[in-house]
Amino acid sequence: MHSNDTSRRELAWIAVDWGSSNLRAWAMDAQDQVMADAGSDKGMLALAPERYEAELLRLVQDWLPDSGQTDVVVCGMAGARQGWREAAYLPVPAALRKLSQGAVSPRLEGTRLRVHLLPGLSQSHPHFDVMRGEETQLAGLVAEKPDFSGRVCLPGTHAKWATLESGAVTQFTTYLTGELYQLLADQSVLKHSVGSDDLDDPACQAAFTRAVAEAHAAPQAFSSRLFGLRAQDLLDSRLPSGSARLAVLSARLSGLAIGLELSDACREQPGDEPVTLIGNPALCRRYRVALDAIGYPATHLDGNSAVLAGLRLAHRALTDNGESL
Amino acid sequence: MHSNDTSRRELAWIAVDWGSSNLRAWAMDAQDQVMADAGSDKGMLALAPERYEAELLRLVQDWLPDSGQTDVVVCGMAGARQGWREAAYLPVPAALRKLSQGAVSPRLEGTRLRVHLLPGLSQSHPHFDVMRGEETQLAGLVAEKPDFSGRVCLPGTHAKWATLESGAVTQFTTYLTGELYQLLADQSVLKHSVGSDDLDDPACQAAFTRAVAEAHAAPQAFSSRLFGLRAQDLLDSRLPSGSARLAVLSARLSGLAIGLELSDACREQPGDEPVTLIGNPALCRRYRVALDAIGYPATHLDGNSAVLAGLRLAHRALTDNGESL
Repeated sequence: MHSNDTSRRELAWIAVDWGSSNLRAWAMDAQDQVMADAGSDKGMLALAPERYEAELLRLVQDWLPDSGQTDVVVCGMAGARQGWREAAYLPVPAALRKLSQGAVSPRLEGTRLRVHLLPGLSQSHPHFDVMRGEETQLAGLVAEKPDFSGRVCLPGTHAKWATLESGAVTQFTTYLTGELYQLLADQSVLKHSVGSDDLDDPACQAAFTRAVAEAHAAPQAFSSRLFGLRAQDLLDSRLPSGSARLAVLSARLSGLAIGLELSDACREQPGDEPVTLIGNPALCRRYRVALDAIGYPATHLDGNSAVLAGLRLAHRALTDNGESL
Repeated sequence: MHSNDTSRRELAWIAVDWGSSNLRAWAMDAQDQVMADAGSDKGMLALAPERYEAELLRLVQDWLPDSGQTDVVVCGMAGARQGWREAAYLPVPAALRKLSQGAVSPRLEGTRLRVHLLPGLSQSHPHFDVMRGEETQLAGLVAEKPDFSGRVCLPGTHAKWATLESGAVTQFTTYLTGELYQLLADQSVLKHSVGSDDLDDPACQAAFTRAVAEAHAAPQAFSSRLFGLRAQDLLDSRLPSGSARLAVLSARLSGLAIGLELSDACREQPGDEPVTLIGNPALCRRYRVALDAIGYPATHLDGNSAVLAGLRLAHRALTDNGESL
């Protein structure tokens, strides 16, 4: 038992989610359980190609055995053209169990790591679109439900909506929702009128759901409703004062941005089929409230769990194909 | 004749357009003709209330007679709450010939100037909205056409659409179009994909009008089309390269932002009634091309001429009422 325990605790491989702004690495044992994790703010935007290996080693070297090579499976922007080495996009339709077939290995200085950079997905019809990182979260969903069909929403700076059929992505659309919100809240004329909101506050939740419903019903009025928020701050005597006022107006701005997204994303969504939300719990809760406001049910899968499940699936596929280990 | 000429060239009053970022002053003779003009970048955002008078004197003191008081009629943000002194908004419906009835005078240190700050307009139904400065351009239109009825568009950072009935503003809506474009072009993920466009270039004009038509027809897809622009830059092999590529994608971004505005603003616009555009010629030409792309005719009135005509109208009303001179 004791020796079994010890063997289970030996490092088997390393999973890495390497985004634009951050990276996170997990030490995985032979049973695909997490033994340890580490992270840094050296995302793709902060690194030249020749600096990735040193950054990775800095984070994981204490996990490595004294000899031999360790497989590292990496998703995200490290595989972008401006990242470590480009892992070319797989065009849709793309079976998510086969992501690893598009993996590439960067040239390494040392011999302790064997790195596999997973590809993103691309689409040329009906519109141009790309994703890099989210496909691994979608693969995590498919790892749990191999024949999954349905709509999946991954909220964020660039929110993705993907249509899956039997475990394959057939189409997807990216919305600039999170970035739009942040630019408007931080840098536009609205910066004087918004702060941070709290959906547990009934006034904020009411302002949020009302804005979602308005933007969903009349998306063409989006940019006038944005200015209207500033005008409301100047003129509406019914608004609370101080931070409660900023919170209510922030909730409204968030609702307008998400409502605009939903007015497009839900156009062909059957009302009785739940949307699967993948991402951090707070943001997914916000989307669940928004979807509920316009009559759509939703389920939630944690984003970190999903990306780990997707990296496990890719690692297993690489192993089964004898591409490593 | 000679002495007539000379008398005509004596300063009668001063017209001022004092915006957020700039101000412009005109020396006016007794026939309401411009004798000279001056400007600076000391807009409302750059001045504390107590500094307006000195800044104005700095610009106009060479025009002033040796003795007596000179009337100064000011429109724009100098009359905002955070400006020189607040000239409270007039609620709509508002007759544009009566703007001067809402004028206020700031407390002055010296005795050479008699300053009248014109009010802006506000609206509480069907949505909250405000304007400050554009009402004087609208008054300029009414100075030329006293019983004007129709839709007027004033493009800009915060584009305004006003409905006029017999020389009065009955309703108006502000769109964040220009600010949205600038934030997206300068600070979003799209900044790598856009430069500056040129509507005289056929490829730019085609990209612009196509984007206007797309956003007008499907405003709900606005935020996905924004990201699609980035994806197109990554994937579309038919795009030109270098600065021609940035120009085409910029034209598309501009078309999406203006098309979103038009999809709302033109919803109840009769197709045979021209929109009157007031503003700088380049921007109004862009709007005229956009309106033409979706089947609406437009006429154009120069923004500087309009604001001067509006200030003249206000000055005459102040004079007629014996409020000054």
